[in-house]
Amino acid sequence: MAYGSIDRRRSWWGWGWEDHALTDEQCGSYGALMSGLAESPIPAPSVDEIRIREPRVKPPDSLASIFSHQPVDRVGHTYGKAYRDVVRALARNVENPPDLVAFPQSEEDVLGVLDWASESNVAVVPFGGGSSVVGGVEFRDPERPFVSLDMTRLNRVLEIDTVSLAARIQGGVLGPDLENQLRPSGFTLRHFPQSFEFSSLGGWIATRAGGHYATLHTHIDDFVESIRAVTPVGVSESWRLPGSGAGPSPDRLMCGSEGTLGVITEAWMRITRRPAHKRSASVAFTSSADAFGAVRAIAQSGLYPANCRLLDPGEAALSGATERGEWVLVLGVESALHPVDGLLDDVMALAMSFRGTNRSPQQRSDSETDPQRGQTDSAAEAWRSSFLRMPYVRDGMVRMGAIVETFETATTWDRLESLYADVNAEMAQVIQQVTGSPGLLNCRLTHVYTDGAAPYFTVIAAARRGSELAMWDEIKAASMEILHRHRATVTHHHAVGRDHRPGYDRQRPDLFAGALRAVKDSLDPAGILNPGVLIG
Amino acid sequence: MAYGSIDRRRSWWGWGWEDHALTDEQCGSYGALMSGLAESPIPAPSVDEIRIREPRVKPPDSLASIFSHQPVDRVGHTYGKAYRDVVRALARNVENPPDLVAFPQSEEDVLGVLDWASESNVAVVPFGGGSSVVGGVEFRDPERPFVSLDMTRLNRVLEIDTVSLAARIQGGVLGPDLENQLRPSGFTLRHFPQSFEFSSLGGWIATRAGGHYATLHTHIDDFVESIRAVTPVGVSESWRLPGSGAGPSPDRLMCGSEGTLGVITEAWMRITRRPAHKRSASVAFTSSADAFGAVRAIAQSGLYPANCRLLDPGEAALSGATERGEWVLVLGVESALHPVDGLLDDVMALAMSFRGTNRSPQQRSDSETDPQRGQTDSAAEAWRSSFLRMPYVRDGMVRMGAIVETFETATTWDRLESLYADVNAEMAQVIQQVTGSPGLLNCRLTHVYTDGAAPYFTVIAAARRGSELAMWDEIKAASMEILHRHRATVTHHHAVGRDHRPGYDRQRPDLFAGALRAVKDSLDPAGILNPGVLIG
Repeated sequence: MAYGSIDRRRSWWGWGWEDHALTDEQCGSYGALMSGLAESPIPAPSVDEIRIREPRVKPPDSLASIFSHQPVDRVGHTYGKAYRDVVRALARNVENPPDLVAFPQSEEDVLGVLDWASESNVAVVPFGGGSSVVGGVEFRDPERPFVSLDMTRLNRVLEIDTVSLAARIQGGVLGPDLENQLRPSGFTLRHFPQSFEFSSLGGWIATRAGGHYATLHTHIDDFVESIRAVTPVGVSESWRLPGSGAGPSPDRLMCGSEGTLGVITEAWMRITRRPAHKRSASVAFTSSADAFGAVRAIAQSGLYPANCRLLDPGEAALSGATERGEWVLVLGVESALHPVDGLLDDVMALAMSFRGTNRSPQQRSDSETDPQRGQTDSAAEAWRSSFLRMPYVRDGMVRMGAIVETFETATTWDRLESLYADVNAEMAQVIQQVTGSPGLLNCRLTHVYTDGAAPYFTVIAAARRGSELAMWDEIKAASMEILHRHRATVTHHHAVGRDHRPGYDRQRPDLFAGALRAVKDSLDPAGILNPGVLIG
Repeated sequence: MAYGSIDRRRSWWGWGWEDHALTDEQCGSYGALMSGLAESPIPAPSVDEIRIREPRVKPPDSLASIFSHQPVDRVGHTYGKAYRDVVRALARNVENPPDLVAFPQSEEDVLGVLDWASESNVAVVPFGGGSSVVGGVEFRDPERPFVSLDMTRLNRVLEIDTVSLAARIQGGVLGPDLENQLRPSGFTLRHFPQSFEFSSLGGWIATRAGGHYATLHTHIDDFVESIRAVTPVGVSESWRLPGSGAGPSPDRLMCGSEGTLGVITEAWMRITRRPAHKRSASVAFTSSADAFGAVRAIAQSGLYPANCRLLDPGEAALSGATERGEWVLVLGVESALHPVDGLLDDVMALAMSFRGTNRSPQQRSDSETDPQRGQTDSAAEAWRSSFLRMPYVRDGMVRMGAIVETFETATTWDRLESLYADVNAEMAQVIQQVTGSPGLLNCRLTHVYTDGAAPYFTVIAAARRGSELAMWDEIKAASMEILHRHRATVTHHHAVGRDHRPGYDRQRPDLFAGALRAVKDSLDPAGILNPGVLIG
């Protein structure tokens, strides 16, 4: 049952599969791309090197079989996968590991763990794929015993309603396993966050994850038909309803609750037939005004392309989409039923009307563009391949001493250009001041709306060994200050966790915080669920 | 400032404008269509006939100018516009009128009223257009003094962001006034519930109203960018964000709160350019299986027509869409930017593949189909005209002794046909038993989703004078029992109010009710806001 007990081992310190990590040689190659990095990579740490304290609590006898106190599990459940997490793991710094890791096999097990924890004043940190980049799975109170509640044994698609296009799915299933269980019936959830391979359905819902679609249905929330969750005071389940106006939505309260109100054990999710028709294309722009104008026109057109991701020149170059210093807009349309050529033509016409240059190679219709499948367009392909490989490269760069981290937000169109300009101007200064070199600051728009867009910034810079956390924290704080000044959200789809608390606390209405606190007290009177996240 | 102080008088006892009410002669004509009704209509009641108790509270001096104690206002704010409300008004039965009606001119006034009410233990019933059909604006505790808080003086579009396509709008504005203020800029909110003329933006949000679009963006919720609300403990305002994953959505907690958590004074709403391209069409089917199959195929196609309303044979006949005993599907597509002929062709092809018969007359492109404007298709036109006139006809029929009322719901596709069959079979029996005659029971699907649809049933039957309420309550209770058995929502877009409490209390998760109660206590500690609605 251990974190690494399956055949292929997950990396405890970095992203994904252990055997996908960059070799030392590869790290060196990447490191050579930027000045100021180390000569050689920090060695990847093994669990055996890590000294952790003894567990401070014992599991209840009745549930002993689902608990692990093995170091490999405890160490592997200490952090998420943010830059800060990798830095600390590489430094062999694992100061506050969970005392125990629970691997419930059933909803009854989850109830049992919460009952025991409530009685014992033990904190419980729900854990899906462990891909949080905001400290969402990292408990930070060194005084209070806590367990990590690993939900990944609850990993089944339990039921598929082929008439209503919905499936009842357990919360702990990770992306590929979920899709593998839907595929034989011809369906897909079509939710492909960058963390897809290593994040769970329950985690997506709890964090309001952003997914495959760049328009229209951007967050997982839209695909939720009903939720079943275990709270410390019992099980809550909403009815399966395609739509309802009966009071505030119970599901929308659970979406984004980040493990503070309950543990999502099952959800009925809206699924779709696998697309049979797909087209993609790329358009280049020479100015930000044209690029933003084109994206806004498409977002407000009612055409709703599945993909509509704008890369700024730095991002486009980094991902290999272009080397000409252009903005690149990656477009995709798809349908399970009807050809989409006309739709792509309409979208392209809008893009081209902003002085765009078609950068699509010869177009082939109807092939697959899933993260797991082939591609139709080389710029799209380059970007997507880079998208999925990026976390591994990130780890290699971090081993070479680089800061590699992101921050993302959303804002209305009227503020977007000034936000983009201010972030670029001010953060360039901050990065220079903090690291002593200009570094790289890139941006893409990941999701677009009729009323705004979600910019996603990547920072790459050389850190000083030993000062990585302080340097990043200073950069991050400066970015949050700019976002706050523009009233741009502290997160569009990375959740609040513990790292975004300062920005979140200034953003959400105070009265809503009080309301959420009241909900928390009603569902989790002992305050065991993910303390420190969102509230309190 | 009185309820009837503007030039054109609103009907205090029935729907809409006083001068739109059916004449006695028209009532007689409608009455002759159904056996068992009266020979002549109950006379329309005038306010002068109504005896009401003296106000039990006095307004605070500082706010005296915004309060009215005139009978015309108090009587006009006693009920909503449900069948039960009209019956009681026609019976000159106004037992529990508000002690006072407040007409705040500003947000400060609203704060003042809530402060005074909290201190004085006076209940406050927020009132927009007063079109509730679920007892949402009717206070039923005869012992506790209460005021009706009429928001319609807060009726301005304050700001239009033409870049982001959003507008800041006060909560008390009614539909036509809202559209009139947006129109000069070329924009529309495009939210056209049947109550459009006599319901307010704040009311739509508070009740999660269903609007113009039959697919995709069915409820007002989807158009909310941010909400500003006055609660008894202060003002709460969310940020304008196109999308966010920062914790559970504060706005989604306010959507559907039905005046129990706060008074919506302003909202930033997503608006759209007025459509320049429109097409509509009608398709007839001879079997329910084909009709439901076609609608489901369209709902799951990703084509998202703006209109996709299925009328069963009774409904189609009643609305004049057909007289051949067929099911009729009314379709509409629209765009501000691009021609929609191809889109309509795709939708029509799906419909026709279920043995549909094209019932569209010669099609003309690009005309308007707003409730306020011309039409493109005769079946669509007939249905829409009937849709807007129906409430006036309803009042006339009620004066002739008819029960005319609706109940509506939503359910997943896998249950839809059995729900429809059970409602028809069982409710026919119930109507026969209760009224002694078969009456009419019609159905339309008002909104459709990938995973289900929203059926809307209309009951027309002859009541016994003096027993109208008891008879309808028995019919309604039977309908709610069937909905509950099928786990279909107690309301898709009419809200819960007081009338749907029995069904709602069995439907929402118990733990969510506790959570909502906790929220209520945190925002409204004195329990003054719309007591009896939703919770408590």
